[in-house]
Amino acid sequence: MEYVFSHRISQLKPSAIREIFKYAADPAVIPLAAGTPAAEALPVELIRRLTDQVLVETPDAALLYSQSEGHPPFRAALRDMLRERLDVGRDSDEVLVTSGAQQCMDLCCKVLCNAGDTVICEDPSFIGSLNTFRSYRANLVGVPMEEDGIDLGALEAALKANPNTRFLYLIPNYQNPTGITMSLAKRVACYGLAKKYGVLILEDNPYGDLRFAGEALPAIKSMDEDGIVIYAGTFSKILSSGIRVGYLMAPQGVMGKLVVAKQCTDVHTSMLCQLLCQRFITQTDLSAHLENLRGIYKRKCDIMLDAMDETFPRSVSYTRPQGGLFVWATLPGGMDSAEFATRCVKEKKVSLVPGTAFSVREGEPSSSFRLNFSTPTDDNVRTGTRKVGELLKEMGL
Amino acid sequence: MEYVFSHRISQLKPSAIREIFKYAADPAVIPLAAGTPAAEALPVELIRRLTDQVLVETPDAALLYSQSEGHPPFRAALRDMLRERLDVGRDSDEVLVTSGAQQCMDLCCKVLCNAGDTVICEDPSFIGSLNTFRSYRANLVGVPMEEDGIDLGALEAALKANPNTRFLYLIPNYQNPTGITMSLAKRVACYGLAKKYGVLILEDNPYGDLRFAGEALPAIKSMDEDGIVIYAGTFSKILSSGIRVGYLMAPQGVMGKLVVAKQCTDVHTSMLCQLLCQRFITQTDLSAHLENLRGIYKRKCDIMLDAMDETFPRSVSYTRPQGGLFVWATLPGGMDSAEFATRCVKEKKVSLVPGTAFSVREGEPSSSFRLNFSTPTDDNVRTGTRKVGELLKEMGL
Repeated sequence: MEYVFSHRISQLKPSAIREIFKYAADPAVIPLAAGTPAAEALPVELIRRLTDQVLVETPDAALLYSQSEGHPPFRAALRDMLRERLDVGRDSDEVLVTSGAQQCMDLCCKVLCNAGDTVICEDPSFIGSLNTFRSYRANLVGVPMEEDGIDLGALEAALKANPNTRFLYLIPNYQNPTGITMSLAKRVACYGLAKKYGVLILEDNPYGDLRFAGEALPAIKSMDEDGIVIYAGTFSKILSSGIRVGYLMAPQGVMGKLVVAKQCTDVHTSMLCQLLCQRFITQTDLSAHLENLRGIYKRKCDIMLDAMDETFPRSVSYTRPQGGLFVWATLPGGMDSAEFATRCVKEKKVSLVPGTAFSVREGEPSSSFRLNFSTPTDDNVRTGTRKVGELLKEMGL
Repeated sequence: MEYVFSHRISQLKPSAIREIFKYAADPAVIPLAAGTPAAEALPVELIRRLTDQVLVETPDAALLYSQSEGHPPFRAALRDMLRERLDVGRDSDEVLVTSGAQQCMDLCCKVLCNAGDTVICEDPSFIGSLNTFRSYRANLVGVPMEEDGIDLGALEAALKANPNTRFLYLIPNYQNPTGITMSLAKRVACYGLAKKYGVLILEDNPYGDLRFAGEALPAIKSMDEDGIVIYAGTFSKILSSGIRVGYLMAPQGVMGKLVVAKQCTDVHTSMLCQLLCQRFITQTDLSAHLENLRGIYKRKCDIMLDAMDETFPRSVSYTRPQGGLFVWATLPGGMDSAEFATRCVKEKKVSLVPGTAFSVREGEPSSSFRLNFSTPTDDNVRTGTRKVGELLKEMGL
């Protein structure tokens, strides 16, 4: 039989990162291409204890069907946490538990975008989100990144040029892939522009708790007097990426539709995993846990930056992130990083992700590449980064 | 701000059952409207032990990112289980782990249907699936049910009349909501018609393992020489509905696209829950467990049918299911069951689902209603059913 597919899926390609992720399973390759949180950051014993408590004390809640919105006490705990830690959430906001943050992007696009509607993104941006938006045949418009975040002039021009813009997708903290933090002034300006042009902001904050340098900046959602910001969070980077628990905080007026979309998609998120996360944020010392994580990621980032400072030629520039999991490096003279990435994995057995994977326009060449310091061991971060530096020097840069 | 929504979500209503599910949380109401597996059927201690083993023996696999297809050893175990128990799966078939069976319907529709494409369904059919298909703006065409399954003449007429049919959605075992089992002859005929008209079959089999009467019949997927059947299974009815683990077995030619869709939707299904299910099917005596479940559901079904035989007026007809969770009753003279359901919950404090909820044409009145015997205690199944019978008699039927 010759299979016929929907338009939305026919053009989509598998994510380059997910493909590299499979490749990186080769134990001989040092995986600087990955984006997995550090295995050493997993609180395995804590998870074991909390999971057992869930199954002993609330087996029916953990194992039977529940509401699409998520477990009510868990949603209440999330609301408290967001208010306390980020000053996020007004009376008119509601919380929806999702199957990881990826589903936040999926549900928002499902609810807000018809084919051809515009989504404005930072360029480059997270490939997983871009592919989700593409799966709804959204018209993706990229706005270049500067050192302190999105280019405001270009953003306003994009908003003017695209009156069918449905939302602006932003990762203000330690952006994936660039590691860039958006300045406070730009956060305020983005909010103002969204309000002016009547578009929503989808604020994706997976890494916010992983700040290890600089000063904490307010979430855009904390400025949301007008009900125009949807906030996406996740347990992937602070507890476990494998359990797939994320959440959306959205204005009531949008939430009703998000819940219907959630219902049609997977009914609700795993209750066992929801109840585990609920205990994690209500029964443990979250601040101490996050402090420990920040220490791990700071150390790993420093190892990578030290190795880059040591071995990278001066002609190659790179970001110095204040948090998150990634460093973004740029080859000189507009050189294509795709070929470099291929040489790197073949000749040096180090995987990294060429910038083209994160381009808002698919296939657009990029001279940048993304390095991840969370997944490999400290030794491999050092060795892998040095090998990248070696190759750069062998290329005469 | 006035929010604008996508066409796909604007028309969708929340599932009537999910709304009733919330209502049924009132402890004074006996919930014959639900569809939750029996709490007593949950192997809580087993789940506790297996989950702990997962976290002790394979913490990284359980808690870090994995492949969108699902954990490879789990997929292999599912393949073995399907082959052994159902003679399902050829070399050209592949397995995808999903976040519950609902996601099977979501991914299939996402991959196969453009807006306006036709999906042919049994009428009535499972509201959760119908709403998912509606969320892709599929053209739903219903084919009436007979005592032994879908009306073949009407099915062929529907296939002829709708050349843009992308798939035929069937629940051959103890269908939701009717409890009807499709005969072997009709399974063979459905396969033949799908082949003749070049459409796929999506075979949804959530209840197959819960047979407590009659003889097991082969899955349509077991006849699939031509790569035209996608099979959907779930752990919701045999292990836990709350953990949200299901799976698709589909021909290779379709699977690539399904995996891309899965990636864009939620990256992958909870690894903790996948590994729990893997141990459940590989390290426990599955046959003994299922035998125990069948005993529970047979008992509960018998209690309901006995109470119906005792108290229902002769003018009300009902099915005698060979498995699953539901009995389907029909009022005489084309009476509308929606009003009856409202009276029932108000006057008798018993919730049930009026047939209109399952109509392929939204809002089409129905004289039937669905009764669930798995969720309430045995006493409440008996008491609740008798109260329904009382009301029927008070109405002079």
